[in-house]
Amino acid sequence: MTPYDSLQQRAREIALYGSAASVLSWDQETYLPSKANAYRAEQLGQFAGLTHRLATAPEVGDWIKACEDHPPICADAEETALRAVNVREWRRDYDRATKLPSRLVEEMARTSSLAREAWIKARSESNFAAFAPWLEKILGLVREQAECWGYATCAYDALLEGYEPGARAADLTPVFADLQRQLTPLLPRLQKVTSAVDPARLRGNFPVAGQQALNREVAAAMGFDFDAGRIDTTVHPFCTGLGPRDCRLTTRYDEKDFTSSLFGVMHEAGHGLYSQGLPTEHYGLPTGDSISLGIHESQSRLWENQVGRSLPFWRHWYTRVKEIFPEWDAPPLDEFWLLVNRVKPTHIRVEADEATYNLHIILRFEIEQKLVSGELAVTDLPAAWNARFEQLFQIPVPDDARGCLQDTHWALGAIGYFPTYTLGTLNAAQLFAAALRQVPGLESDLFAANYAPLLGWLREKIHRPAKRYSPTELMERATGEPTRAVCFMDYLKAKYGV
Amino acid sequence: MTPYDSLQQRAREIALYGSAASVLSWDQETYLPSKANAYRAEQLGQFAGLTHRLATAPEVGDWIKACEDHPPICADAEETALRAVNVREWRRDYDRATKLPSRLVEEMARTSSLAREAWIKARSESNFAAFAPWLEKILGLVREQAECWGYATCAYDALLEGYEPGARAADLTPVFADLQRQLTPLLPRLQKVTSAVDPARLRGNFPVAGQQALNREVAAAMGFDFDAGRIDTTVHPFCTGLGPRDCRLTTRYDEKDFTSSLFGVMHEAGHGLYSQGLPTEHYGLPTGDSISLGIHESQSRLWENQVGRSLPFWRHWYTRVKEIFPEWDAPPLDEFWLLVNRVKPTHIRVEADEATYNLHIILRFEIEQKLVSGELAVTDLPAAWNARFEQLFQIPVPDDARGCLQDTHWALGAIGYFPTYTLGTLNAAQLFAAALRQVPGLESDLFAANYAPLLGWLREKIHRPAKRYSPTELMERATGEPTRAVCFMDYLKAKYGV
Repeated sequence: MTPYDSLQQRAREIALYGSAASVLSWDQETYLPSKANAYRAEQLGQFAGLTHRLATAPEVGDWIKACEDHPPICADAEETALRAVNVREWRRDYDRATKLPSRLVEEMARTSSLAREAWIKARSESNFAAFAPWLEKILGLVREQAECWGYATCAYDALLEGYEPGARAADLTPVFADLQRQLTPLLPRLQKVTSAVDPARLRGNFPVAGQQALNREVAAAMGFDFDAGRIDTTVHPFCTGLGPRDCRLTTRYDEKDFTSSLFGVMHEAGHGLYSQGLPTEHYGLPTGDSISLGIHESQSRLWENQVGRSLPFWRHWYTRVKEIFPEWDAPPLDEFWLLVNRVKPTHIRVEADEATYNLHIILRFEIEQKLVSGELAVTDLPAAWNARFEQLFQIPVPDDARGCLQDTHWALGAIGYFPTYTLGTLNAAQLFAAALRQVPGLESDLFAANYAPLLGWLREKIHRPAKRYSPTELMERATGEPTRAVCFMDYLKAKYGV
Repeated sequence: MTPYDSLQQRAREIALYGSAASVLSWDQETYLPSKANAYRAEQLGQFAGLTHRLATAPEVGDWIKACEDHPPICADAEETALRAVNVREWRRDYDRATKLPSRLVEEMARTSSLAREAWIKARSESNFAAFAPWLEKILGLVREQAECWGYATCAYDALLEGYEPGARAADLTPVFADLQRQLTPLLPRLQKVTSAVDPARLRGNFPVAGQQALNREVAAAMGFDFDAGRIDTTVHPFCTGLGPRDCRLTTRYDEKDFTSSLFGVMHEAGHGLYSQGLPTEHYGLPTGDSISLGIHESQSRLWENQVGRSLPFWRHWYTRVKEIFPEWDAPPLDEFWLLVNRVKPTHIRVEADEATYNLHIILRFEIEQKLVSGELAVTDLPAAWNARFEQLFQIPVPDDARGCLQDTHWALGAIGYFPTYTLGTLNAAQLFAAALRQVPGLESDLFAANYAPLLGWLREKIHRPAKRYSPTELMERATGEPTRAVCFMDYLKAKYGV
C-alpha cells in the first residue's frame, strides 16, 4: 500500500469506530434506560481513546510526511486535487491532535466534566462565585492548548481555528462591528412593527402526532431523505450523522405551540441536508466531511429563517397546518407571520429572535477574547457582562443565571465557538441572496413549495465541496464575497419593510 | 498485573466492544434507516474482527495457561471459587475460538450469509432443490468445525456443546424419547379438551397503545426493571443485553389479537429477567454471563407458559384487559383460558402450542443428527422429514416451505441449536414445580399477581449462579434432578385435567 492508501484506510477505520460511537451517543440521548448511563459513558470513553490512538499513531505522521514529500499524483487531475485536499486536512488534524500532550488532553476532559457539573449547580442557584474557580481552570487549560497549537497574533485565534478553520479574530471583528452598528438603530423599529399582535394567538392544542406528521411533510418537502435518516424526540434537539447514509434529527414538542418543534426540525433538517449532501463515496475522508461550524450553521439557519419564516413558505403551508389542526383558532396569515417573526430583546440567547440573537453573540465574542487574553479577570466577568449587555439590549440583567452563567459552552472548554453562530446567520443570508440571483425562477419555486432548485444550488455550492475550500473561499466561490453583514441587514430590512 | 488480572481486563474490553456491537445490531432491527444497512453491516463486521482478535491473541492463551498452572488464590474462598470458574470458562471459549482455522471461520461467515439469502428465496418458492447445495456446504463446514473442536462419541456433540455446554446427544436421546412416548397418546385428548371454543372469540380491535400499556404493566409486575431496559417494536421479537443495566425486548403487534404480543413480551421478559438477574458486578466475565440456551429458554417459557397461560394469572389480569379494551366482546374467562391454551397440530414450529411444539423439536433433533453423521443424504431430506412428520403429527406435509424449509437455523450453520428449545420447555416445568414445592405460599402469591417470590427464587437458583455450574448441575441444585420429562408431563396433565 502507498502512504496515501494507508492514510485513507486509517481514516475510514477511524470513521467506522467514530460513527459507532455516534450511534451510542444518539442512543444515549434518545432511548437509553437511565441505569445504563454509567456503562455507556465507559463505552464512549473507550471509543474516544481508541480513535485518538488510531489518529495520532506515529505511522500516521510518517505517512502524511511521505505524502507531502511526494504528493500522490493520479492520471485524473480531479482525483489528484482531492488527494491534495485530504493530505492537507490530515496534516491539520494530526498536528492539532498531536501537539497537545496527553496530560493536557486528559486534564481538559476531567476538568470540563467537573466544570459542567459545577456550572449546572451554579446556574440553578445563580451563584457565579461557585463557578468562577472552574472557569479560571478552564481558561488556564485553553491558554495552554493555544500555546501548544501556536498562533500568529493572539491565543484566541488558535481556539477559533478548532471551530472555524482559517477564521481570525482580527477579520471577524470589523464584520461583527459593522453588523452591530447597523443592527442597533434598526431593532426598535423591528420591535415596533412586530409587537402589534398578541402572542397568545399562536397558542392552541396541537397533539404531538399532528406535529410529527407536519414536521415530516415539511422536512421531506425540503428534500430530507427519510430512507437515509429519521426524526426522534430528545430534551435538547440535535442533528447527528451516524454513517454515510444515516442522518438523525431530534426535536421536542410543545403541545401548546406547534411552531417550536417545526422550526426546530427545519433547523436540524438544514444541518441534515448538508450531511446528506456530502459525497458519500468519500465518507470518512476530509473530502466527504463538512468544512466548519459557520458553514454548517448557515445551512440550518437558511432553512429555518430565510425559508421557514418567510411569507412564501406560509402561503403554502398555513393551509396544511389548519388542515392538520382543525380545532385551532388560527389567526389570519399576516398576523401569524408577524408572530413567528417577533423581535424582542430577551436575556436568554437560545430564546432570542433572529435579529437580536447576534447581539448575544457579539457580547460573548468580545468577552471571551478578553478572558483568554487576561484583559478581563474572571471575578470581574459578571459586572462586565451586565454592563455590556445593558448597553447592547437596553435592559438590565436581573441575575447571573440569566447573565454570564446561562450557556454551557465555557464550562465545556468550548471557547471560540460562539462566533460561528453569527457567521452562520450572515452566511445564510448571503447564500440565500446569491441563490435568488443565480437560480432562475427561485422565488416562484419557493412560493410553490418547490425546494429542489434551492437544494440543488446548495448541494453544488456548499455540500459537495466538503472540505475542499476554506469557509471563506467557499463563500467567495458561492456568493462572490467573503462573509459580510450587508446581505443579512438587507434581508432584515426587506422582510420587515423598514 | 497478574495473568488473572490481565484476563479479566481483556474480558471486560471484549465485553465493552461486544456490547457496543449489540447496540448497533439492536438499532439495525429497530430504527436504522434502510439505506444505512450496508454501512452497518460493515461496522458489525469490523467489530466481529476486533473482538475475535482480542479474544484469540496468543497472550490470552499464555495467561490462561499461567492461571491453570498457578490457580489464583484469594483470602476469600468464594472469590477463589469464582476465579476458578472464570479460568475454566475462558479456557473453554479460547479453545473453541482458536481451534478453528481463520479460513474456516471466514468460509462459514461467507457461506451462511449466502445460504441465508438462498434459503429465503427457496422457502418463498418452496423449492428445496435450490437450497440443497447450500445445506450440503453448510454440513461440510460444520463437520469440519466438529473435527477441529473434537468430540468423544459423535461429531454432533461438538456442535451441541456450542449451545448447551456439557449436553451430549446420548444423554438427550432417552429424555426426548420418554417425552415423545408420553406425549403422543396425550395429544388427541388435549386437542379434544381445547377444541370446544370458537377461536374467533379471541379476536377484536386492540389498538397498539392499549397493548403497549398492558404489556408494560405485566412486564413490570413480573419484575422487569424499565430503568434498566425497554420494549421496542420489530418484525422478529427478541431480547438483547446491551450492557450490565441495559436489557431490551422487542415485540410486534396484531391489532386483532392482543395475546400474540402479550405472550411474546412475557416470553422475552423472561429472558430479560435472567439477564437483569445476572450479577452486574461480574459483567463481561463468565461469572456474570448466562450458562446455556436451554437454561435461558427455561426462563422465557416459564414466564410465558407456566405463569402467563395459567388460570391464576388470568383471574387477575383478565379484568385489566377488559378495562383497557372496553369495546372487546370478551368471552367468559374459562373460554378465554381454553383459547390461549388450544392444542392443535400445525406444520409450522413457531406457531405451535406448548405441547405439540416438542414434537417439532424431536423431529429436527433426529434429522440433524443423521444429516451431520451422513446417515441421511441432503437429497433425501424432504422425504425423510415428511414421513417422520406424518408419523409424529398424523397430518401430511403439504410442501417443503411448510416442511423442511421452514426454519432459518440450518441456513445459518446453527446445527445443534434446536434441542435447547425442548430442554427449555422441560426445564421450565421442572423449575416451576420445584419453586411450588420450595416457596411457601407461592400458589396464592401467583393468584394475587405477586411475582416477587417466584422471581426471588429464580434469582437465587438460576440467575445469580451465572456460569458457575453446568446446566445439568444447575438443574440438580435447583430441583434435585437433571432435566427430565416428568414434570412437564405432570404439568400438562394437571393443566388440562386429563
